[in-house]
Amino acid sequence: MASNSSSSAQQRLRIIAGHLQKRPEEENASVAAQECKAEAPRSEPSSATPVPRRRQEIMKWNGWGYSDSRFLFNKKGQAEFTGKRYRLSGLILPSLKDWFEGTFGANLQHRSPATPSLNLSAVAPPHLNQPFVEDLKAAGLSVSHDPEDRVFRAHGHCLHEVFALREGRIGRVPDVVVWPSCHNDVEKIVELACKHNVCLIPYGGGTSVSSALECPREETRSIVSLDTSQMNRILWIDEKNLTAHVEAGIIGQDLERQLNERGYCTGHEPDSMEFSSLGGWVATRASGMKKNIYGNIEDLVCLPSLNTQTHTGLGHAHTLEMFPPHQSCSVGVLLEVIQGTCDLMCSQVVHIKMVTPRGVIEKSCLGPRMSTGPDIHHFILGSEGTLGVVTEVTLKIRPIPEYQKYGSVVFPNFQQGVACLREVARQRCAPASIRLMDNEQFQFGHALKPQVSSIFTSFLDGLKKFYITKFKGFDPHHLCVATLLFEGDRGKVLQHEKQVYDIAAKFGGLAAGEDNGQRGYMLTFVIAYLRDLGMDYYVIGESFETSVPWDRVLDLCRNVKERIVRECKERGVQFPPLSTCRVTQTYDAGACVYFYFAFNYRGLSDPVHIYEQVEHAAREEILANGGSLSHHHGVGKLRKEWMKESVSGVGLGMLKSVKEYVDPQNIFGNGNLL
Amino acid sequence: MASNSSSSAQQRLRIIAGHLQKRPEEENASVAAQECKAEAPRSEPSSATPVPRRRQEIMKWNGWGYSDSRFLFNKKGQAEFTGKRYRLSGLILPSLKDWFEGTFGANLQHRSPATPSLNLSAVAPPHLNQPFVEDLKAAGLSVSHDPEDRVFRAHGHCLHEVFALREGRIGRVPDVVVWPSCHNDVEKIVELACKHNVCLIPYGGGTSVSSALECPREETRSIVSLDTSQMNRILWIDEKNLTAHVEAGIIGQDLERQLNERGYCTGHEPDSMEFSSLGGWVATRASGMKKNIYGNIEDLVCLPSLNTQTHTGLGHAHTLEMFPPHQSCSVGVLLEVIQGTCDLMCSQVVHIKMVTPRGVIEKSCLGPRMSTGPDIHHFILGSEGTLGVVTEVTLKIRPIPEYQKYGSVVFPNFQQGVACLREVARQRCAPASIRLMDNEQFQFGHALKPQVSSIFTSFLDGLKKFYITKFKGFDPHHLCVATLLFEGDRGKVLQHEKQVYDIAAKFGGLAAGEDNGQRGYMLTFVIAYLRDLGMDYYVIGESFETSVPWDRVLDLCRNVKERIVRECKERGVQFPPLSTCRVTQTYDAGACVYFYFAFNYRGLSDPVHIYEQVEHAAREEILANGGSLSHHHGVGKLRKEWMKESVSGVGLGMLKSVKEYVDPQNIFGNGNLL
Repeated sequence: MASNSSSSAQQRLRIIAGHLQKRPEEENASVAAQECKAEAPRSEPSSATPVPRRRQEIMKWNGWGYSDSRFLFNKKGQAEFTGKRYRLSGLILPSLKDWFEGTFGANLQHRSPATPSLNLSAVAPPHLNQPFVEDLKAAGLSVSHDPEDRVFRAHGHCLHEVFALREGRIGRVPDVVVWPSCHNDVEKIVELACKHNVCLIPYGGGTSVSSALECPREETRSIVSLDTSQMNRILWIDEKNLTAHVEAGIIGQDLERQLNERGYCTGHEPDSMEFSSLGGWVATRASGMKKNIYGNIEDLVCLPSLNTQTHTGLGHAHTLEMFPPHQSCSVGVLLEVIQGTCDLMCSQVVHIKMVTPRGVIEKSCLGPRMSTGPDIHHFILGSEGTLGVVTEVTLKIRPIPEYQKYGSVVFPNFQQGVACLREVARQRCAPASIRLMDNEQFQFGHALKPQVSSIFTSFLDGLKKFYITKFKGFDPHHLCVATLLFEGDRGKVLQHEKQVYDIAAKFGGLAAGEDNGQRGYMLTFVIAYLRDLGMDYYVIGESFETSVPWDRVLDLCRNVKERIVRECKERGVQFPPLSTCRVTQTYDAGACVYFYFAFNYRGLSDPVHIYEQVEHAAREEILANGGSLSHHHGVGKLRKEWMKESVSGVGLGMLKSVKEYVDPQNIFGNGNLL
Repeated sequence: MASNSSSSAQQRLRIIAGHLQKRPEEENASVAAQECKAEAPRSEPSSATPVPRRRQEIMKWNGWGYSDSRFLFNKKGQAEFTGKRYRLSGLILPSLKDWFEGTFGANLQHRSPATPSLNLSAVAPPHLNQPFVEDLKAAGLSVSHDPEDRVFRAHGHCLHEVFALREGRIGRVPDVVVWPSCHNDVEKIVELACKHNVCLIPYGGGTSVSSALECPREETRSIVSLDTSQMNRILWIDEKNLTAHVEAGIIGQDLERQLNERGYCTGHEPDSMEFSSLGGWVATRASGMKKNIYGNIEDLVCLPSLNTQTHTGLGHAHTLEMFPPHQSCSVGVLLEVIQGTCDLMCSQVVHIKMVTPRGVIEKSCLGPRMSTGPDIHHFILGSEGTLGVVTEVTLKIRPIPEYQKYGSVVFPNFQQGVACLREVARQRCAPASIRLMDNEQFQFGHALKPQVSSIFTSFLDGLKKFYITKFKGFDPHHLCVATLLFEGDRGKVLQHEKQVYDIAAKFGGLAAGEDNGQRGYMLTFVIAYLRDLGMDYYVIGESFETSVPWDRVLDLCRNVKERIVRECKERGVQFPPLSTCRVTQTYDAGACVYFYFAFNYRGLSDPVHIYEQVEHAAREEILANGGSLSHHHGVGKLRKEWMKESVSGVGLGMLKSVKEYVDPQNIFGNGNLL
């Protein structure tokens, strides 16, 4: 690969050098390319390694997120959130107990705790392919077959996966974990995997909710978890073209933090961003909260520049003036200039770089939008780890917005809220984020109100204070809330805000203050911790999502929620389930809808099986009502059965033909999608 | 395929019917799907057929556009534009002669006229596959092997193609032309082509400039031109989701005109829109002038709705109220409602529908954005006729904008203009269209000034009147002009306009009036007719384009223009060529640049060969300077040699694997791309 880039760079140098005006003494000077410094493999990870190899040192082995952060009910029966990482950390949530017991018919006396620690004897000894492991070590790669490391990477966060871990049930797990530090390491690993015929499963943030990380039980080869977390550098930032070239193992929060230090951001903020990786986003077609401004992952991935003006890497910076017009330059100076260009050319001529068994896929095309046949980036986006490992990505970056403002709107009912969101989309004036929760989620949000904090206004108090007393028409059992986030130039934000609130008013919506909006978004990252609390008290649940045309939104929301209730009842679930939804994204032709579904399983013998049947029925209901198989969670193994119906037999055949070409031995054998 | 949709619709009905509240007497009623009326094949084309089967009745057989419209120099040596179709029609262009003779060293005495009519004996007899033709006729399909029909569809509008026609040289042409009227006809044709092993070449608008329509010389099978022009209906318009479902043979101007009658538009306005087709846009990843508002073709293609609220087809309309909430409905009424739903479901559950030898590709996914593996639409977009025939597409539509305003800005030089466009892109405030022409095109635009019209202000007069006298700093040999178009809500347009002109001022740009902007855009559709005029006087030329990162725009423009001049000189072109460019689109990370290249070939023995060598060198220069293989013209056969370099060997292999799966016999054998 390197030699291919070098000859390509040499060719480009030769062509550009044709424009040099040589002085007589330079007549015989020639231009030559040298070894690209930017591509030299670096075997040590960057000194600041936000994600430790042994992730279980800071993260839960059998639940969501950081070990130091969890919900619990204290001795007084009050809910608390532990730790110091979040705004909610250390606070009491006085209303949560009543909401929890009331919603689920649960009782804090009825406990279903998790197995506290991993029973190492429950983990089968690794099935090692010794020659493969020896070749890895000879190549200087970091390797482990420690059972804790293997179990950690054997799962994502589907309910059935976490439930099994809590019960101490360990299924098929990877046999080996390997940590590449750079693209060249990945090429080596894939080469060795092909040579020794082992199964490679790329592992980024481990946040999959589609069973994508589950090891296929029938896999007889050694399974190798290729953990990308140490391959996490921002290689360069291009301020002229507003792009950044980044290694795919970087985690969302680290990417944004490092870019923020330079005054930039990608603005890609999936709810999983504390843990999910750039490579994972590419593999699953991820979507972020502020996609209205920054785009979804397919809009963010673009091509790098042949930056001859300014190159500012994190480690070094040099400025090159290239070909000042109408001036002749000495060849000597230009050789230096062209050398710089060559450095840049070799590492930057790609959008997405992926290592596959067939070779490295990379475009050399350098334009923001092209017509060069079917766009091969779209063969990579959504390939869910079945074709190879994404190693480097060029992303668009934006200056950090000058101004941010939250907001919220109360609607008399869900229909009015949806109609308002549809009109906002029609006028193409959606804020950075606009989300509409149904009445159940409004109640739920109230339950998460922390005690005694100057920052947080009681939502209900706020509501009473501003509106309920004035406008008695709002029924607390029907009202819904939309949360909003505006970003940008301050003047434009205020103008934009007015436009949106004016539209909301036409649908009976009333502004309900910034605090309520901000609190809605602040809760985003702690919601996932709640499931672990629920599972301590016989309550299991999951979220799932879809995208759907505008005119089907209401029917879909109503029908899916009713179906969930009906299916639970038919299966003997004692207490009606929590069945709730929100509209989380707007588009020209439709919306993204997110469902929560949870129920009390006490007294049921096979709760996960019941859960799976109800979720399956819910997905059938979604599809029947015009919703898609997934807006952004992906297919994994969880939703494979609907692939043919979704993309047609021929579509599925095309995906299979690509897989068979790129990976004929099925080295990337996670079994997703196809 | 019909039965597959029916069973899918039946399944959906069954699921939705689960929500019916049945009255006791309706307990045994069941829901059944019937034959979908919306899919009934219609063998007659719509009564208004904008494009006649025998296109040569209104279009030139050996040049661009309508037969009644052409540039010529009259007896007085003045340039005229004939006919009545265009704003320029019937007008004198007094400055064109001097510009033409001065720019090219041409002389109106030196004429190189085209062969006036097709010499039928130069057309080889058709190589008919008789059983295939008989099966076509038995199926009621419209067929021709008339030599004029065949020649018309044997070419696009690359220089070498038109030059050959003008010389009366006819190469390999299709043997048969067939005109399907609907999707089912296309399925029949493809089925028969596979059965009889003939080569199918889809033909839309015939405006390809990548040699995509050229028949492969080595093709021994019968070549069948599948002309989509009679498959041109808007099947329905969905006002709730702002989409329209359209047959792929529709031509751009007809699509917009029919939508306009209903108050809508797609806003997709490629320069070829008078002749190019929806299917062609999908096949080539087309781009339109106003993509800043409406998007490029990949942004316009979306999924249809399960529209149960409003269905308004051009032939019929019915309004359905589906599942009013909280009410029980009689099963009888809902059966009728569901029947309507079924009608809609069967024909609407796709974004793009393509017929391939392997079968019909269609998504059933119904969301505006999805994560269901790699996006198969992107296997279709850009496939350039190599995989199958696109038959139906669902497009996003928008209400016609309330207000439109043109504008123009003069910059002291090209660098300042580019810097301004880059800043406009950075601030994400680009108008519907913004284009920057270089100084040569400014001069050229002046040459196209018509005489004596109240609508048109002399550009130079306008310039003098407003600015040259005031701001003497502008050098007419360096100044450049940007033309602008704003659309939307009137208040927002005026605000937007101010923002853009303020940015322009920071780069030395001065507003130069609406008229100059409007005229710049008005000339768009007549420019293509100029080449035929040139070719009457020993001048040949072509346009080509690229996309490129912002920081390479200036170098690329300068280097490519210089390279063209150098290459012409080295090949003995007597008079320096016209070598000019403009920036026609802006994106976050770069721009689209369009080049014109033309020269006087009098005295040269093989002008087209010289032209091709220079164009090849120009493309090498573009690639070396960071530009892409194409922004929107596509690859065809003209740019195949760079495909591997552009998308990598593995990328190319993936495209080939899809081709081999979808079309193992190479029925779609136009030889493009791979």
